[in-house]
Amino acid sequence: MNQDDPNVKAVLAVNLRFYEAFGSLDIGEMDKVWEHSDRVLCIHPGWRLLAGWEQVRKSWEAIFYNTSLMHFNITDAQVIIQGDCAWVSCVENITSVVDVRASNFAVQATNVFVRGEGGWRMVHHHGSG
Amino acid sequence: MNQDDPNVKAVLAVNLRFYEAFGSLDIGEMDKVWEHSDRVLCIHPGWRLLAGWEQVRKSWEAIFYNTSLMHFNITDAQVIIQGDCAWVSCVENITSVVDVRASNFAVQATNVFVRGEGGWRMVHHHGSG
Repeated sequence: MNQDDPNVKAVLAVNLRFYEAFGSLDIGEMDKVWEHSDRVLCIHPGWRLLAGWEQVRKSWEAIFYNTSLMHFNITDAQVIIQGDCAWVSCVENITSVVDVRASNFAVQATNVFVRGEGGWRMVHHHGSG
Repeated sequence: MNQDDPNVKAVLAVNLRFYEAFGSLDIGEMDKVWEHSDRVLCIHPGWRLLAGWEQVRKSWEAIFYNTSLMHFNITDAQVIIQGDCAWVSCVENITSVVDVRASNFAVQATNVFVRGEGGWRMVHHHGSG
């Protein structure tokens, strides 16, 4: 992975925007990161697969509703680009306050992005504890 | 996802070949499924990320060495294809005997494949319990 490659930079940037949106707890920010289509898939740690933007968006609303703080430090990012597809593996080092309980933990993530007219959009997120 | 689409059928077929290779406990079968390149990534449940075919292949050798039986029933497969990339989300319903302990459990998986001259090859596997 060449970190100076503009395509790699663009994918790393959208990957970070996803975590900024997650940390903002603002569904409007999450709306900007994802593709709004039936093909998007999302697996939160310990959840079953969610398919389609409607289901995926509802899950973010539920997570944001129950969370009062979420801070990410993203490490070990690997970016692979093939045509208009890219996938990122990274470690989410998380500090969170959910249902008034504070915790620190790490999640291993796979994020898939597709490049369209509007740039790179997330189409798949798989997080596992 | 249109299960009659020949591209979807081809991706579902290589996804099943991956699990047949896994169940065969034969590294030669696993060799046939994966792309042999530095860009392949693999996250086994509870493991750290493995990067590059050499590391990934060693992990399969270690898993096969310690396993005396591994049977898969794959359900809930979703296939998304974009150009020469495809990603599959599925549930691995597993019966295994590892270190003489038998168990039944389910793993949620994300598998990414890239189409080249030799057909579809696995480039990324993320399994989480």
